[in-house]
Amino acid sequence: MASNSFGEVFRVTTWGESHGPAIGCVIDGAPPRIALSEGDIQHDLDRRRPGTSRHTTQRREPDAVEILSGVFEGETTGTPISLVIHNEDQRSKDYGEIKDRYRPGHADYTYDAKYGIRDYRGGGRSSARETAMRVAAGAVARKVLSRRLGNAFSVRGALVQVGPHAIDRERWDWDQVDKNDFFSPDPVAAEGWADFLDQVRKDGSSAGAVVEVVAAGVPAGLGEPIYGKLDGDLAAAMMSINAVKGVEIGAGFAAAAMPGHSSSDPMRIEGGKPVFLSNHAGGVLGGISSGQDVVVRFVVKPTSSILTPRPSIDRFGAEVEVITKGRHDPCVGIRAVPVGEAMMACVLLDHLMRHEAQNGPIDRP
Amino acid sequence: MASNSFGEVFRVTTWGESHGPAIGCVIDGAPPRIALSEGDIQHDLDRRRPGTSRHTTQRREPDAVEILSGVFEGETTGTPISLVIHNEDQRSKDYGEIKDRYRPGHADYTYDAKYGIRDYRGGGRSSARETAMRVAAGAVARKVLSRRLGNAFSVRGALVQVGPHAIDRERWDWDQVDKNDFFSPDPVAAEGWADFLDQVRKDGSSAGAVVEVVAAGVPAGLGEPIYGKLDGDLAAAMMSINAVKGVEIGAGFAAAAMPGHSSSDPMRIEGGKPVFLSNHAGGVLGGISSGQDVVVRFVVKPTSSILTPRPSIDRFGAEVEVITKGRHDPCVGIRAVPVGEAMMACVLLDHLMRHEAQNGPIDRP
Amino acid sequence: MASNSFGEVFRVTTWGESHGPAIGCVIDGAPPRIALSEGDIQHDLDRRRPGTSRHTTQRREPDAVEILSGVFEGETTGTPISLVIHNEDQRSKDYGEIKDRYRPGHADYTYDAKYGIRDYRGGGRSSARETAMRVAAGAVARKVLSRRLGNAFSVRGALVQVGPHAIDRERWDWDQVDKNDFFSPDPVAAEGWADFLDQVRKDGSSAGAVVEVVAAGVPAGLGEPIYGKLDGDLAAAMMSINAVKGVEIGAGFAAAAMPGHSSSDPMRIEGGKPVFLSNHAGGVLGGISSGQDVVVRFVVKPTSSILTPRPSIDRFGAEVEVITKGRHDPCVGIRAVPVGEAMMACVLLDHLMRHEAQNGPIDRP
Amino acid sequence: MASNSFGEVFRVTTWGESHGPAIGCVIDGAPPRIALSEGDIQHDLDRRRPGTSRHTTQRREPDAVEILSGVFEGETTGTPISLVIHNEDQRSKDYGEIKDRYRPGHADYTYDAKYGIRDYRGGGRSSARETAMRVAAGAVARKVLSRRLGNAFSVRGALVQVGPHAIDRERWDWDQVDKNDFFSPDPVAAEGWADFLDQVRKDGSSAGAVVEVVAAGVPAGLGEPIYGKLDGDLAAAMMSINAVKGVEIGAGFAAAAMPGHSSSDPMRIEGGKPVFLSNHAGGVLGGISSGQDVVVRFVVKPTSSILTPRPSIDRFGAEVEVITKGRHDPCVGIRAVPVGEAMMACVLLDHLMRHEAQNGPIDRP
Repeated sequence: MASNSFGEVFRVTTWGESHGPAIGCVIDGAPPRIALSEGDIQHDLDRRRPGTSRHTTQRREPDAVEILSGVFEGETTGTPISLVIHNEDQRSKDYGEIKDRYRPGHADYTYDAKYGIRDYRGGGRSSARETAMRVAAGAVARKVLSRRLGNAFSVRGALVQVGPHAIDRERWDWDQVDKNDFFSPDPVAAEGWADFLDQVRKDGSSAGAVVEVVAAGVPAGLGEPIYGKLDGDLAAAMMSINAVKGVEIGAGFAAAAMPGHSSSDPMRIEGGKPVFLSNHAGGVLGGISSGQDVVVRFVVKPTSSILTPRPSIDRFGAEVEVITKGRHDPCVGIRAVPVGEAMMACVLLDHLMRHEAQNGPIDRP
Repeated sequence: MASNSFGEVFRVTTWGESHGPAIGCVIDGAPPRIALSEGDIQHDLDRRRPGTSRHTTQRREPDAVEILSGVFEGETTGTPISLVIHNEDQRSKDYGEIKDRYRPGHADYTYDAKYGIRDYRGGGRSSARETAMRVAAGAVARKVLSRRLGNAFSVRGALVQVGPHAIDRERWDWDQVDKNDFFSPDPVAAEGWADFLDQVRKDGSSAGAVVEVVAAGVPAGLGEPIYGKLDGDLAAAMMSINAVKGVEIGAGFAAAAMPGHSSSDPMRIEGGKPVFLSNHAGGVLGGISSGQDVVVRFVVKPTSSILTPRPSIDRFGAEVEVITKGRHDPCVGIRAVPVGEAMMACVLLDHLMRHEAQNGPIDRP
Repeated sequence: MASNSFGEVFRVTTWGESHGPAIGCVIDGAPPRIALSEGDIQHDLDRRRPGTSRHTTQRREPDAVEILSGVFEGETTGTPISLVIHNEDQRSKDYGEIKDRYRPGHADYTYDAKYGIRDYRGGGRSSARETAMRVAAGAVARKVLSRRLGNAFSVRGALVQVGPHAIDRERWDWDQVDKNDFFSPDPVAAEGWADFLDQVRKDGSSAGAVVEVVAAGVPAGLGEPIYGKLDGDLAAAMMSINAVKGVEIGAGFAAAAMPGHSSSDPMRIEGGKPVFLSNHAGGVLGGISSGQDVVVRFVVKPTSSILTPRPSIDRFGAEVEVITKGRHDPCVGIRAVPVGEAMMACVLLDHLMRHEAQNGPIDRP
Repeated sequence: MASNSFGEVFRVTTWGESHGPAIGCVIDGAPPRIALSEGDIQHDLDRRRPGTSRHTTQRREPDAVEILSGVFEGETTGTPISLVIHNEDQRSKDYGEIKDRYRPGHADYTYDAKYGIRDYRGGGRSSARETAMRVAAGAVARKVLSRRLGNAFSVRGALVQVGPHAIDRERWDWDQVDKNDFFSPDPVAAEGWADFLDQVRKDGSSAGAVVEVVAAGVPAGLGEPIYGKLDGDLAAAMMSINAVKGVEIGAGFAAAAMPGHSSSDPMRIEGGKPVFLSNHAGGVLGGISSGQDVVVRFVVKPTSSILTPRPSIDRFGAEVEVITKGRHDPCVGIRAVPVGEAMMACVLLDHLMRHEAQNGPIDRP
C-alpha cells in the first residue's frame, strides 16, 4: 500500500522521477475562490531552486510550474489543482556508472529490496527533486492560510546549524534570513559556514545541518487527539523530507534535562488574553496548538553523494567502491529550509480544515 | 476531523477517558488464525502498569483486559478485535480543584480552546492512561510479527537518560533491562537515577527522560515512499505518546555534526548476504528498512503534575497558582518504555502488511 | 486490509459477533457540546429490535446500550464515543448443526474462503445483529443534524414492497408508518402483507422487500466530486446492509425508459428561492445535493434462513441438505427500515462536515 | 473534504476539467515489474472515445495518453504512475450562452451552490470527459489482474437496455459486443436501438440505458466486512459514473419478488470443487466474492443536454428556458460500457490487494 499523498482534508499527492519527463502534484481539497496564479507558486519554488549560490548544486532547473486544472479565471474552483514542472536539464549520462551500484546512505539498495526494480537515473523517485512539489503545494497552503488567518500569520524557516557550527541565538534576526546564501538568521554564523563549506567541498565531503521552522499567528485549538496530534503530523511531515533523521518541537531533546518546575510554560492574562511566559512546549500542548508560535526543528544528515570513495556492493552481490560524481550540494540542509516551511504550511492548513470540520469556524488568533 | 486511530492496514482505534467507566480499543485488520488470549496481552500491560515501584505513580490499576470480539476458540478470526479495561481506582475527588484551572504544561487549556468542554477528571482523554491500549494493541502486533518473522524478530526498549544523566553505552546489556525499576540497560546508571529521582520527588519536581527502542530481525523493504516512510510513521507514532517532544532515528541530531564521508554506512558482503558496517541510518534508508536494526529514540518531558506552585489562569480568565496533588510519576518517561515498544511493533506490522499488499510476500530476513 | 469503519469525518467503527459477549461501536468525530444520553439512542434501537411483532424473529434482545466514553455531564466532548450492547439471549445450541455446513445464500462459505476460520454461532460477524450499532450511530448523527439543520430536517424510512406486492403511492401517508407492523406508508398494503407473510411462514419460505428512505431539509451543496459523491456514498452505505442487492436514487432504474425531455427536473423561482418542479434526480445532481428531498431505495433479498431443505456443501467438501431452524424473520426487509434511516443520517452528517471542512459553514436550507 | 480519489491500495486520483489544458490521473500503489506501455492504455481509451459512430457525440478527442512517471524501461516501478491527456478540441465558444444558466439535470446549479464558482466550459469538472481517466486506470488494473489471475480472468461489459428496449437474454453472445455500435450482446436489439436513437435525435431528446458488467475468474474471498464489502464498493464505483441513478448486483431489484426457497444459490461439488447451481447473488455473499461471476448492472439516465427547451433559472435568480446546443450523445449510456468495465477492474484489483495485505496470497480460482 503505497503512500505518495499527505494531508487528510488539504491533500497533496506527488509523482515523478528526477530524470523522467516531468514531476507534479495534485492538490485535492483546496478551498474555492482563492486567488491563485503560477506566479504565486513560482516565487516559493525559486527560493528552493538549486544553482543560486556556490553552496548548492549547479544543476540548473528553471522549475517553471504550470497549473493544469482547478483554477478558473484566476481563482481556485474547489476541484483538484494539478501542477506540473517539466524536467529539462537531465544529463542522464552522469549517472550511468551507478546504475548497478548502491550508493551508501542512499535509497538505492532499499528501493531494489522493496520493488526489485528502480529508476536509477538521478535517484529516481527518491531524489530531492520531489521536494519541489512540496514547495509548490506549500505555496498554495500559504495563500489559503493568509486569507483565513490574516496578516498575523506567517511561516518562516531558518538554518540554525551547519556541520558542528550552530548560530548564536542572541543574534537571531529574521530580516537576515534572505540576505545570505544560507537562510541564516545570524549573519556572523553565515560567514563562518561559507568558509566551512568551501573546505568541505575541497575535501570531497559533505555536511549536515539543522533547520528551524516557526509558525506565528496560529490559533489555539488545531490538532487532533490522539493520533492526529499537530506535533505528530509535523514530525511525520518533516521526517518525510529527504535525509532528515530527527525532529523536535519546542525545547525538544533538551527537555530531558530540564527540571519539571521550569519546563512547563506559565500562563498569565495580558490585555484580557491568555499569554504564556515561555515557549518550551513549542506551541503545542497535548497535541493541540496553544496559540503560541509553533516551533519545529529537524536535522538533515550530510549527503552521501560525495567524491570520496566509499565501500559498498552492487546488485549482483559484488563488493565495490562508490564515488558519486555529478553536481551535488555539499550541504543539502540549506535547500531544506523552504521545504520545511512548505510542510509546516500544509500541515497547519490541513489541521485548520480538519478542526473546522468537527468544531466549526475557529476564531482568528 | 478527529483522529483516534492509527495504522492503515493494522488499524487501531482507542477510546476512553481516565476516569470514565472504561477504556478500550478496536483492532481492525489483524490476520486470521493467530493464537491470541487475554494472557498474551496482559503480560505486556503489566510491564506498563503503575504502582510497581516507588518511582511510578501509586495509583493502582489492575488493568485486567477483556477480549470482546474477533477471537474464536483461541484464534483471531480476521474480524475486529475489541479490547476493554474497566476503570476501577478512580478517586475523582482528587481532581476537583483543577476543574476550572489549567495546569501548566498540560492539555487542559488546549482541550478547552478546541472543544469548549473537557472531562477534567484525571486529564480525561489526554491522560497517559490511554497508552494502556497502545500496549494492548502492541501485544497483538508482536504475536503476529513473531509468527511472520520468526525468532530473529524482536522489539526491545530501554531508558537511556533520566534528567541530565545518560547511560554509558559501553555498559549496554539488554538482560539488565528487566532487572531494575527503570528499564535501564546500564545497571550503574539505574542506581544513580534512583537517588536522583528521590531528590526530585523531595523537591516537589519532576524529571524528563530519553527512551530508545530497537527492532531486530526486520526485513529490508518495509516503508513507503514518500509520505508513508517507515521513519516518518515511527516519528508520528512516538510523538503521539504523551509528553514526547522529539524523535530521532539512528544517529539522529548528532548527524548534523558528522562529516559526510563517515556518516553513511558502508556495505559489504558477508556469508553471501549484504551487511552494513555501521548503523548511523538507524535501519532506514529513503524511508525504507534496510534489514539493519531499526533504532528510534524519543524524549519525554518532565511531567508538569508537580507539587511546586506554578502561575497559570483559570477558564474564567483569572490568574491563579496551580499545584497538582494526587499520585503522579516524577518521571513519566519510565513507563513510556513499553509504550514505545508497542508503537514500534504496531508500525512495523502495519508496514509489513502494506508492503505485501503491493509487492507480495516478503522474504524473512 | 479490513474495513469495519465508515464515514470520513463522522466515522463509525463497529465490532462484535452475534453470539460473542457484546457488540459495540466507536464514533470518532462527533462535534462537541451536543446533548446526548443513552435514552436518545435507545429510542431508535427499540424500533429495530426483533420480537416486536409476529413478522420478525422472536429472539428477544433487550439491546440496552451503554455509553462508555465521549460524553461528560450529558454532553459530547469531541472525543470518541464508545457504545456497547451486551449480548444476552444467545442460545448457541440452536446453531450447532450448521457449524460445518454452508447455508445457501449466507456468508458462511465466503468467510471460510477468506479467513480459513469463522465464528459460526448465529452468523458471527455477518449477522444482522451488527446493524444494531448502525442504528445507534445513526441516532447520534440525527441529534447532531437536528441541532445543525433545525426542524425542517428529517430522515424517514418506509417499506414500499414486500415480495411482489408494492404499495400504492397514491395512498402514501407518513403518519401511517408507525401504525402498522411493517413501517408501511400505505395501510392497505400493510394488511395484504400480513396475510402474505403468514402464508410465506407457513410454507417454510421467506420474502424480499424494498425500502425507501427520504431525507428532507438537506441543504444544497453536500457531496464531493468525483468519487465521494453523495449518491455514491449512499449507495455504498445501503449496499453494506445485510442482504441488500440493489440501490437506486430518485427515478432509479425507471430512468432508463424515460425520454430525456421529461427526465430532468425543471427549475423555477418561488418566494425568491430556487425550486424544482419534479424530483426524478432524487435530490442529487452531479453527486451533490440540490436542496430537494434526498430519496434512496434499496432491495433486501429474501433471507435464506428457511425451513425448506436446500442443496449445499460442508467444509469438508461433502454434499449436504441444509435446513435453518431457529428463530428467523420471514422478511428481514422490515427491520431494515430503521437501519436504512440510520445509514442515511450518518452519510448526511459526514458529508455536511466534509463540506464545511473545505467550504466553510453551510446555509441552512 | 474533497474526494477525487478512489481505491485504498490501488488508488487512483483524477484531475482536470473538460475544457482546461489537460486531464489526468495519478495511480498510486500499482505493483512493480508489470509491463506497461502507452499502447496498453490507449486501446481501452479508444473504445470509450466519442466520435466513433453517429450515436455518440461528434466531438473528436484523439485522447492520446502520455505516461509521465512510474514506468521505467517498459515496466512499472511501484512508484506513482502519472497519466495525462491534453485537451485539443475544446471549442469553448459553444458554451458561452450557458455560462450563467443552470442546465436542468446537470450539476451546474449544485456546483455553484457548493463552491460559489464553477468552470462552466463544457461542464468543467462534472463533464463525462473525466471518465477517460477511469478507463486509463482500468487498463492498468486489467494488466495487473491478468498477470495475477491468469487467462481465466476477464471483465466484460454490455449494453442491455436502451430507452424502454431491453435485450433478449436468450440471444446473449459476448462475441457480438464489439460488432455493433452499442456494445450489445444481442445483435437484434442493436438494430432496433439504432432506429430508436435516430428518432430520439430527430426529436431533440435523449435516452437512458442499462449497462451490465461481468467479471469472470474472480477468486473467492475478495471483499471486506462490513463497510468495505465488494458489492458496496462496486455500488459506489458505478454510482460515481456520470448520470448513473441505480446499481444492482446479481438478481438485484428482482430479488424482492423471489420466494426465499429459490432465491439463494444451491451448492454442489463438481470435479472436486464447489460450484453454484445459479447466480442470483451475482457472485457476492456477505460482501465477499464466492468464486462465481461478479455481475453488476447500472442505469444511466437520459442526458439532459438536449435541443428541447427546458424551464430553468440562472445564477441571478431569473427564470429562463435552456437549450443545450453543441455536440452531445443522445444516449450517454453507450460510452458508459467501457467506463463500467474499468471501474470493475479497479475495484477488483484494489480488493485483491486489500485481501492479501491481511490474509496473504490468494489461490488462483
